Amino acid sequence: MDAPLLKLLEFLRFPSISTDSAYANDVQRCAEWLVRELSDSGLDARLQTTPGHPVVIAKNQHKPGRRTVLIYGHYDVQPVDPLALWTHPPFEPHVEDGKIFARGATDNKGQILVHILGVRETLTHGDLPVNLIFLIEGEEECGSTHLDDFLAVHRDELKCDIVAVSDTGMIGRGIPTLTYGLRGIAAMEIKVTGPSGDLHSGIYGGAVANPLTELARLLATLHDDSGRVAVAGFYEGVEPVQGWEKNAWATLPQGEAEIRALTGSPELFGEAGFTTHERLWARPTAEINGIGGGYQGLGTKTVLPSEAFAKLTFRLVPNQQPEAVLENVKAHLRKHVSSAVRLEIMTGHSGEPYLMNPHSADGLAAQRALQKTFGRDVALIREGGSIPIVQTFKKILGADTLLLGLALPDCHAHAPNENFPIENFHAGIRLNQALLEELSGG
Amino acid sequence: MDAPLLKLLEFLRFPSISTDSAYANDVQRCAEWLVRELSDSGLDARLQTTPGHPVVIAKNQHKPGRRTVLIYGHYDVQPVDPLALWTHPPFEPHVEDGKIFARGATDNKGQILVHILGVRETLTHGDLPVNLIFLIEGEEECGSTHLDDFLAVHRDELKCDIVAVSDTGMIGRGIPTLTYGLRGIAAMEIKVTGPSGDLHSGIYGGAVANPLTELARLLATLHDDSGRVAVAGFYEGVEPVQGWEKNAWATLPQGEAEIRALTGSPELFGEAGFTTHERLWARPTAEINGIGGGYQGLGTKTVLPSEAFAKLTFRLVPNQQPEAVLENVKAHLRKHVSSAVRLEIMTGHSGEPYLMNPHSADGLAAQRALQKTFGRDVALIREGGSIPIVQTFKKILGADTLLLGLALPDCHAHAPNENFPIENFHAGIRLNQALLEELSGG
Repeated sequence: MDAPLLKLLEFLRFPSISTDSAYANDVQRCAEWLVRELSDSGLDARLQTTPGHPVVIAKNQHKPGRRTVLIYGHYDVQPVDPLALWTHPPFEPHVEDGKIFARGATDNKGQILVHILGVRETLTHGDLPVNLIFLIEGEEECGSTHLDDFLAVHRDELKCDIVAVSDTGMIGRGIPTLTYGLRGIAAMEIKVTGPSGDLHSGIYGGAVANPLTELARLLATLHDDSGRVAVAGFYEGVEPVQGWEKNAWATLPQGEAEIRALTGSPELFGEAGFTTHERLWARPTAEINGIGGGYQGLGTKTVLPSEAFAKLTFRLVPNQQPEAVLENVKAHLRKHVSSAVRLEIMTGHSGEPYLMNPHSADGLAAQRALQKTFGRDVALIREGGSIPIVQTFKKILGADTLLLGLALPDCHAHAPNENFPIENFHAGIRLNQALLEELSGG
Repeated sequence: MDAPLLKLLEFLRFPSISTDSAYANDVQRCAEWLVRELSDSGLDARLQTTPGHPVVIAKNQHKPGRRTVLIYGHYDVQPVDPLALWTHPPFEPHVEDGKIFARGATDNKGQILVHILGVRETLTHGDLPVNLIFLIEGEEECGSTHLDDFLAVHRDELKCDIVAVSDTGMIGRGIPTLTYGLRGIAAMEIKVTGPSGDLHSGIYGGAVANPLTELARLLATLHDDSGRVAVAGFYEGVEPVQGWEKNAWATLPQGEAEIRALTGSPELFGEAGFTTHERLWARPTAEINGIGGGYQGLGTKTVLPSEAFAKLTFRLVPNQQPEAVLENVKAHLRKHVSSAVRLEIMTGHSGEPYLMNPHSADGLAAQRALQKTFGRDVALIREGGSIPIVQTFKKILGADTLLLGLALPDCHAHAPNENFPIENFHAGIRLNQALLEELSGG
């Protein structure tokens, strides 16, 4: 096993689960290990406390006239439940079939370590071509709770021209991938209340509106029969998919058959008139994430319940505004709900969509670095999920983010048997070197 | 306190909870107490074992030429949870405001004891005018599991002309009430499955059908906008409400304002073109009793779940057939479900609706007994719930059932602070004597 891989094993052995306070000491030790590794690589590294887990900051000696690149990542990991489904203990890294298996292998220890080791190797032979800042947090898996404040306070010392993040995916094995767009999100919970208490559905059924029925009827109004969101004003501002994007996505190796196999759905379904990639990346959605009410145990209970609830999230695309979407949805629900029940609406968190131009100077630099590393044409994609920190970088630091993910669809991030291909680990070290060279504008 | 009331206190002190095996001994002791009381009243009483809790049978000496009346009741009671909401311990009977508070006070100890004490009083002075059979079971609150078999085995010795049951309600205080119809029931559970596992709603939302959305859309097809069940064939065989029923129900003291207050619903709602009483008693319904799927905890989880379920019951009226209704609903659901999800349907228990003629000789006899006891015109009603045993009496014993309930709407059967008005307790004893006299045909 080579030296870089041995370093990854060390990193993966820390059970740095940020959501569980029982692991607070392991999270701290992991951060301290990172500071040592960054220092040993020749950087000026330090731990910065926050009200939660610490942030690791490292810099080379910044010189005037060079561009400044901030590389973001996180050293905390997801919980390991359900532990029984792991074939090997999650914090005892295990190599098999050219992959390294451990919690955090892909998300994000493997993908941030390649940047550290790429920088280390470059510094062994000379200087970096850019002013570099590493920002590696320990709370990504619990919502990056303190990072916005941290960025605001340290705005000046974190000032940069461009941000690079390896925490997304490649569209397929060996296919270099640049993610240039993310969907935003807006969350809402609704509660429908009918009678003041649970009633017997035999004695009162038929004369009193059933909150479960009214909730179902209300949720059914969210889409029309063609899969389009039926909320007035919902699509206001939505930017059409551009011609070059349609062309780029049409040739991607991950087509509809692959997505159907990946999800196990009987058939794919979505807004009429759009391809699956367009539906996933460039069209907004209204999703029900949870629903509950009445009796959920075994067998039958003849109850006409007092209330029922549903949890909703809306995925947003440029240039939808989360607040406007939430207001339009509220108006829609209030208009369509039966007057025989009461409706409560509680709005939750939201995040704006993100889009950068992959044909900008930095976008093209990232593409060249990817092409050079993998020896193939770069896939230009968006992703359907949301990474709110990317918007925060834009707002507070004024910098775009290059998303150069190295995860594969079967890496099982957030799931048992998380793994990272060793070939991507080594490619990632070369990618870091090529990327900083290309971004230097030299 | 008079002797009858003291007997009720004795009866109520047994915690005869049939659903919890921890109380099996108390259930048995309660049954033995009943046998002693029935014997002391001058009847030939005995305990009959079943695979569950015992049945108590008691008879007077049957004489040829007399009509035979079977009085049915139960000595088991509901569990007491939530105990904290009781103002006094549920098995330490407590008298306040002219009511006796205890678990079982109304359902059914108070209401069966009045018949025993009525018979006891009659026998003190002479003979009963009829051949009498008491059938008092100990499993009513757990579904009368073994009673059908018991009736089939003991069909000959339980042969009777008419059954009388006091286990329903009065439409209002002091208003004698004869219930001559009950709705039937048919139960079903459905499960909608989309992807083979839970998916991230950001990454896959928009391209895969969401089982929660598809379930809501499917459930929304069960009714049309006017509250009518939209299942083809659902209303086949439904008998129209008769003119005399419309007239009788229009004058009932429990009107729409009372039902709205009782349920706490913002407004009453049901099938267009029918009154609230018609909707409750003479029209079939499709009710959702429970629904669940996805994330139900606090906050947001961006999951696109693999599956979702709903529990349904249909209340049936004469002459709907449960099996036909279930088949029609299945066909409806299969027709309307999206092909992008899988639908599983599991049918549950069912029971036929019941209707007897309150203007038959026995119906008129019951009305005369009620009128004589309470000194007021009798309210003729149906009830919306189901009492399957009544259909079993019809099928196995060939006898109609007179439902002469003494419960009031605020008796809290099955709930904390269950109570029974002492005036109804004493009226019940007189009712038993008047009823047997009237039914004797003398």
